[in-house]
Amino acid sequence: MKKFEQLPEIAKLGHVALVSKDLDKSLVFFKEVIGLEETEVVDGVHYLRAWGDFEHHTLSIAAGEESRIDHIAWRTKREEDVESFAVLLEDAGVEVTRVAAGEEAGQGEAIRFQLPSGHPFEIYYKIEKPLAGEKRRAKLKNQVYKSWAKGVSPRRIDHVNIGTNGDPSAIINFLAEKLGFKIREYIKAPDDAVVAAWMSVTPLVHDIAVMGDPTLASTQELHHLAYWSDNAQDILRAADILCEVDIKFVGPGKHGISQALYLYVIDPGSGVRVELFSNSYLIFDPDWEPVEWTMDEMDFAFTYWGDQANRPNSDQSTMFAGPLEDLVVKEPN
Amino acid sequence: MKKFEQLPEIAKLGHVALVSKDLDKSLVFFKEVIGLEETEVVDGVHYLRAWGDFEHHTLSIAAGEESRIDHIAWRTKREEDVESFAVLLEDAGVEVTRVAAGEEAGQGEAIRFQLPSGHPFEIYYKIEKPLAGEKRRAKLKNQVYKSWAKGVSPRRIDHVNIGTNGDPSAIINFLAEKLGFKIREYIKAPDDAVVAAWMSVTPLVHDIAVMGDPTLASTQELHHLAYWSDNAQDILRAADILCEVDIKFVGPGKHGISQALYLYVIDPGSGVRVELFSNSYLIFDPDWEPVEWTMDEMDFAFTYWGDQANRPNSDQSTMFAGPLEDLVVKEPN
Amino acid sequence: MKKFEQLPEIAKLGHVALVSKDLDKSLVFFKEVIGLEETEVVDGVHYLRAWGDFEHHTLSIAAGEESRIDHIAWRTKREEDVESFAVLLEDAGVEVTRVAAGEEAGQGEAIRFQLPSGHPFEIYYKIEKPLAGEKRRAKLKNQVYKSWAKGVSPRRIDHVNIGTNGDPSAIINFLAEKLGFKIREYIKAPDDAVVAAWMSVTPLVHDIAVMGDPTLASTQELHHLAYWSDNAQDILRAADILCEVDIKFVGPGKHGISQALYLYVIDPGSGVRVELFSNSYLIFDPDWEPVEWTMDEMDFAFTYWGDQANRPNSDQSTMFAGPLEDLVVKEPN
Amino acid sequence: MKKFEQLPEIAKLGHVALVSKDLDKSLVFFKEVIGLEETEVVDGVHYLRAWGDFEHHTLSIAAGEESRIDHIAWRTKREEDVESFAVLLEDAGVEVTRVAAGEEAGQGEAIRFQLPSGHPFEIYYKIEKPLAGEKRRAKLKNQVYKSWAKGVSPRRIDHVNIGTNGDPSAIINFLAEKLGFKIREYIKAPDDAVVAAWMSVTPLVHDIAVMGDPTLASTQELHHLAYWSDNAQDILRAADILCEVDIKFVGPGKHGISQALYLYVIDPGSGVRVELFSNSYLIFDPDWEPVEWTMDEMDFAFTYWGDQANRPNSDQSTMFAGPLEDLVVKEPN
Repeated sequence: MKKFEQLPEIAKLGHVALVSKDLDKSLVFFKEVIGLEETEVVDGVHYLRAWGDFEHHTLSIAAGEESRIDHIAWRTKREEDVESFAVLLEDAGVEVTRVAAGEEAGQGEAIRFQLPSGHPFEIYYKIEKPLAGEKRRAKLKNQVYKSWAKGVSPRRIDHVNIGTNGDPSAIINFLAEKLGFKIREYIKAPDDAVVAAWMSVTPLVHDIAVMGDPTLASTQELHHLAYWSDNAQDILRAADILCEVDIKFVGPGKHGISQALYLYVIDPGSGVRVELFSNSYLIFDPDWEPVEWTMDEMDFAFTYWGDQANRPNSDQSTMFAGPLEDLVVKEPN
Repeated sequence: MKKFEQLPEIAKLGHVALVSKDLDKSLVFFKEVIGLEETEVVDGVHYLRAWGDFEHHTLSIAAGEESRIDHIAWRTKREEDVESFAVLLEDAGVEVTRVAAGEEAGQGEAIRFQLPSGHPFEIYYKIEKPLAGEKRRAKLKNQVYKSWAKGVSPRRIDHVNIGTNGDPSAIINFLAEKLGFKIREYIKAPDDAVVAAWMSVTPLVHDIAVMGDPTLASTQELHHLAYWSDNAQDILRAADILCEVDIKFVGPGKHGISQALYLYVIDPGSGVRVELFSNSYLIFDPDWEPVEWTMDEMDFAFTYWGDQANRPNSDQSTMFAGPLEDLVVKEPN
Repeated sequence: MKKFEQLPEIAKLGHVALVSKDLDKSLVFFKEVIGLEETEVVDGVHYLRAWGDFEHHTLSIAAGEESRIDHIAWRTKREEDVESFAVLLEDAGVEVTRVAAGEEAGQGEAIRFQLPSGHPFEIYYKIEKPLAGEKRRAKLKNQVYKSWAKGVSPRRIDHVNIGTNGDPSAIINFLAEKLGFKIREYIKAPDDAVVAAWMSVTPLVHDIAVMGDPTLASTQELHHLAYWSDNAQDILRAADILCEVDIKFVGPGKHGISQALYLYVIDPGSGVRVELFSNSYLIFDPDWEPVEWTMDEMDFAFTYWGDQANRPNSDQSTMFAGPLEDLVVKEPN
Repeated sequence: MKKFEQLPEIAKLGHVALVSKDLDKSLVFFKEVIGLEETEVVDGVHYLRAWGDFEHHTLSIAAGEESRIDHIAWRTKREEDVESFAVLLEDAGVEVTRVAAGEEAGQGEAIRFQLPSGHPFEIYYKIEKPLAGEKRRAKLKNQVYKSWAKGVSPRRIDHVNIGTNGDPSAIINFLAEKLGFKIREYIKAPDDAVVAAWMSVTPLVHDIAVMGDPTLASTQELHHLAYWSDNAQDILRAADILCEVDIKFVGPGKHGISQALYLYVIDPGSGVRVELFSNSYLIFDPDWEPVEWTMDEMDFAFTYWGDQANRPNSDQSTMFAGPLEDLVVKEPN
């Protein structure tokens, strides 16, 4: 195996590349209801971000016959880490595809590969950080857009949550060993198997969560991508906004795990689920002991308080209460 | 019938007099968890109020063999209104009992009577408005106690919600015709019967709500008494506080009717349900057209969003989803 | 003097009729920044209201050579009260002008007159309560428009605050004796004169406040009109919104008097000051003892906490720290 | 110079060790008003932390003749980093003192040294993370204490802000070159000198800020230590709590730099200033371009909105408006 000066490292979640079978509806949802800003549209792909996202995009949406997640992208700490990851992954027998600079708008060279479950990942370093257009540009020099222009108006992308009907340990181990994610909290089955894990490379409790559920439709599901709002009340305001445009959701509630204030809403265009998210906590300790939850603590762990169940005017399943086939990635690439 | 200079009028909800089969537990709940202040204890009766309540008490708790509501008390606009109501009610065939000044601590002469359903009401005018003790007294001259001393710490009493397995119209008509309450919102059954009404003498959407439900245990149930907090986030903070002392609740959520942000929690001592409540709206219009809701709008009307259902760690029934006999536990196990 | 069945009564603040010397700028401010909805435009007059206002308008704006308040309008409790007030006022030597139905869009017959200070008042009863257009109409049946469409997005009009360089007692007495306003809180000068009063006919601490200040430009100033938001955090959100469109303001802060969470911002078109306002408290007691504040309590009474002073990036005077000539009504009619 | 496997790294701010000339008053302030929990008292030193702090303490208070900061402590990423830092610092000519394990309760071996300005720093790795006592222990497995027990009740320590009347660049360069802090935002003087910098090793905008001000009393001042609350409204609640116990403060307001919602309050026992802090933003980008602010942007940079000035009922200087000698009162009158 090749020697590196330094092992490559993931710095942060970058973006989710979404394909929607109803692009127009998805754009209304993400731009008008959630209130994301559109950086630009290139070759029919809409590049979106929240008002506090610095990178070119944290969500891209392209039209497609079937809705699916094209990839989940992660930024490295150093430019050379992209190639280092490629070498490490190929050494480990993972098939790696190179993506040329510019193939994805605003982005430099990248690599793509699949988790053992088939979840499509991308790793990149170079990314443009365009200013907002003059009219929408924030007066605050440390903020990209003026906030509160439209809809829910979250600050930034936060994390992704992926599911599998296969063995979640294979994903968790891959994330830990190949990509350096640390387990922050996890759920242990009676047979000591880890059935879910909240993992991060940052002080966030999770940049990614992994859930195993045999009832899922495939090995490579996305439970949700999450956008962050600064205050709990912003999530209540989001609930009002969603009700008034007749979009159903689950929440608000607070998870025990991660202490997240949450609201789950499904994009009516693509079927992808979005978590609107606030509060939670940060982990700065280098020797963090992962918090273990057992199956008999699940009610408390998942719903510390609030709405979890099928409400009469909701079409969402409770998390893990049933099949997630309404999510994305029915027929992944 | 005797002539009056002016018809007597109710000014406001005064207090709820509660009898608890487990006084100690009720006191821990109301004083430590909800965070009410204790004005004084007289003859074993604990007189409580919130930090922003001006009157001597808005809740009294006495020990008893069975938990029950002794009475729901209303303050009149003028001193002479108490006797005028007595005359009017007796003229209408209602049995009226006189309560001597001082029989209830801090309170002047009062009358008691029952609604057609048997719900026990009290009407009074004279009431002491004691200052808080020096240590707990607010620096703000328009506020009684310093806020945020303990627990949830709501500002003031807000309303009561009563139920019956009999005819709610009899109650609603009595409240409207004899006591001057106006209907602000109501639910109409397919046969045009009014099955629930939100009524007030103040600009609050409801000082009292009346619900008919054939599955209730009696004609004279209390669904809840409500305390008001200034901000929606205070209700989320209340949820954290309740979870941490292992008291189950329903909510948070937002009702369509009244636009109330709510959380329902049961006093483990008496079984009485308390609503922690914020937001909602005010009605200043003298010609308010009562808002009509039909049975097929109920999901939306009751739960605009949020938690309504039996959560696994809740022992409360959904509102109107089942028997309310756990409310004021008539015959506890 | 003519006998009445019942003395006429004011039910609520109706609207403020504003004339702006820069109508376009005022419309951008009130519609885009504050986020009021436009009911209709009739004869060049723009009729605006907040998403939770039920009446046809709570603010009207017409173009004029000089900015001024045309009138402050109050709704009566009964239709006949309008004429009763006319008779009572004329009996008291007040000049009363009749306004024909429809002269002001959506409004029935009204009367206009001046306070002893010259402040122009209107009294009406009949007013249309139009639904919102279909696209902006709330799903909630007790709310007019969907909330959170644009800008600050307050719920409803709350109160007005008027000033005079003359004798405030003349105004306060007029409001109390002729119009039935009750004093809720007041400031007493060392010579026992009442120099300011917060007065209401509703349970709000003030539907109107009256301030005496010899440095004011005239006897008939408007310090501000206020719009209400449901939550304290909405005021912080408003501060962000205003900063980002480069409009200066004073606040946020909390008054001791009225316990109001406030932010004061001046319409760049007309110069009229708007208070964005939340929290405060309600007075339901019929025997409310007005809260007295003395001059040496002023710091605490005006600014319980928060921003009161001229901030470097504010062009507003501290309340009562200097001339208010930047307000409205330089040259009243 | 000795070779390291890996350069040592700071992981996070650990604690501030405070000496108070009025210990009793400081304990009332930090335990009752701010609401910190007391882990234990050892040899007269009180070890405190917030309900969400995991380490043994984030503030220690000992009695002393004069109030002063004994040290500001930082935790390393690895155990061996403590000794590596010692070697690196000594190689650079910095005097390093060894602190034996247990000399500070709950803490392992540590080193102490001074910044070029004289600010006393400590570096450690080993630290106990005691559970809360059973009664105060959180039911949430990822949280130490139940929240909201007393006073302001912030979640965790956040950062320190130090000042100097000497050359801030010497401090900033030391922090960057010797300790690995990255500049996130900074203020540039007309002569291009950096007069203030916000620096971090975590995604927080600042774990430490450094301010130069020739009017300060010494080269080694502490402007404040900061505790974090989850929501903006918690800071408004803190303002109410502080007003009611008659402790003056500056704020609430929002800084442009760091986007922090702030409130500054001085411990009446020691004179140390505490920032109660929420919102702000996180920096995950490895190639963050420090945000530059110029002197003519200061009003905006320091006070995006809110209270910055001497309020009549405040005894605090505006930040940078005057001498900070009241901060850690070296020689109180």
